[in-house]
Amino acid sequence: MNLALLSAEDLREGGKARLTGRRRDHLVSVLRAGEGDSLAVGLENGLMGTGTVTRLTDSLAELAVTLDQPPPAPLPLTLVLAMPRPKMFRRVLQTVAALGVKDIWLINSYKVEKSFWQTPWLQEAQLHENLTLGLEQAKDTLIPTVHLRKRFKPFVEDELPALLQDRPGIVAHPGTHEPCPIHINRPATLCIGPEGGFIPYEVDKLVEAGCEAVHLGSRILRVETAVPVLVSRLYDGCLATFS
Amino acid sequence: MNLALLSAEDLREGGKARLTGRRRDHLVSVLRAGEGDSLAVGLENGLMGTGTVTRLTDSLAELAVTLDQPPPAPLPLTLVLAMPRPKMFRRVLQTVAALGVKDIWLINSYKVEKSFWQTPWLQEAQLHENLTLGLEQAKDTLIPTVHLRKRFKPFVEDELPALLQDRPGIVAHPGTHEPCPIHINRPATLCIGPEGGFIPYEVDKLVEAGCEAVHLGSRILRVETAVPVLVSRLYDGCLATFS
Repeated sequence: MNLALLSAEDLREGGKARLTGRRRDHLVSVLRAGEGDSLAVGLENGLMGTGTVTRLTDSLAELAVTLDQPPPAPLPLTLVLAMPRPKMFRRVLQTVAALGVKDIWLINSYKVEKSFWQTPWLQEAQLHENLTLGLEQAKDTLIPTVHLRKRFKPFVEDELPALLQDRPGIVAHPGTHEPCPIHINRPATLCIGPEGGFIPYEVDKLVEAGCEAVHLGSRILRVETAVPVLVSRLYDGCLATFS
Repeated sequence: MNLALLSAEDLREGGKARLTGRRRDHLVSVLRAGEGDSLAVGLENGLMGTGTVTRLTDSLAELAVTLDQPPPAPLPLTLVLAMPRPKMFRRVLQTVAALGVKDIWLINSYKVEKSFWQTPWLQEAQLHENLTLGLEQAKDTLIPTVHLRKRFKPFVEDELPALLQDRPGIVAHPGTHEPCPIHINRPATLCIGPEGGFIPYEVDKLVEAGCEAVHLGSRILRVETAVPVLVSRLYDGCLATFS
């Protein structure tokens, strides 16, 4: 946790904030912060800054906070992801949030097992928790939005074209002819398939909607590896320049 | 498992191979391969090709194999990595092998907990297993070499300079002034610190040995995310062009 993300409910009068539960415990046992110690904090969807521990009990930590730094620039990428296997999904969500993606669409695909959609990790509170973990890792405050689309065809036909207005769409798919473009450095929509890949029908539908099918070379990467490789290939500066 | 990696011991006369244990089980239960089915195979440090199942029992699978494809080109990157937390280490090893890194140096650092070096994942057989999993994911056969260096100073003073002969050295470290170079597309040595980063003394020693300290922006990434981001930033084509 490189930053403690505060919600509006954590704020108290007089520039104070109160942490309980996981973040209080992490502050004490992992960061080993005690009274007088400072740590990076940020307000959900707000500014970042510093919090100094003013009071510590078994159940809470009180901080005096100064929020005066803007969060890093979002990555201008809309990510359309076939729903991953639950265990990998948590890590992918955290990774995607850490990389600065703010718009995430989880879609169905032939090779997505029905059971994946039943995972408790898709509940509102769990999504928020894993996105928060990613933001706290990377030091960011802007909470990504996650859209669930359990039916592939209606999504691709009715919604995807709107996500491709004024921005290129890419479906990363092994075996296609064109290599993934380099450093487009502008808003884009990226589609990534499930384990085993999109089936040909799905690639055709994505291309029909306006995406370009591209490959990353002959190495087949897991989605949690492919996402950072693709982000780093598409953007050369949007990991937010250090100031 | 996009490819079943065979060792020399698995080969039998007449262009046959015999799989037992994990790979036999994976072939049957995950790939659902039966007699007559084909799958991608490769020989450790050798060629890749196709194997067709000729016989299947509870304990073994026999394949007729044709090995006629070269493996993908290695990534010309030497990776120097502060020993990660064991649970993350397995995944990092698999990721690094999938990306095509062939030369891996695991080094100590102030923030590497002593217990990390005790992990069973560092045993020869376990290292081989996780490297194999990465190769089988990506479809590669060339087994990376892993060097363990439990003492930072002797490594950096006595061995690292040789790894920097005729090739640039980079230490990726948050907060430095220079951004990580883009698309160097040639052999290089990349150093990545532990959770919490190298301490200033260590960065100084790495720079003294010949590395350039660079940053990746203000987002702090976990090592399993930073490695693919860095690889994709340093190399634009060496994920092996699809032929």
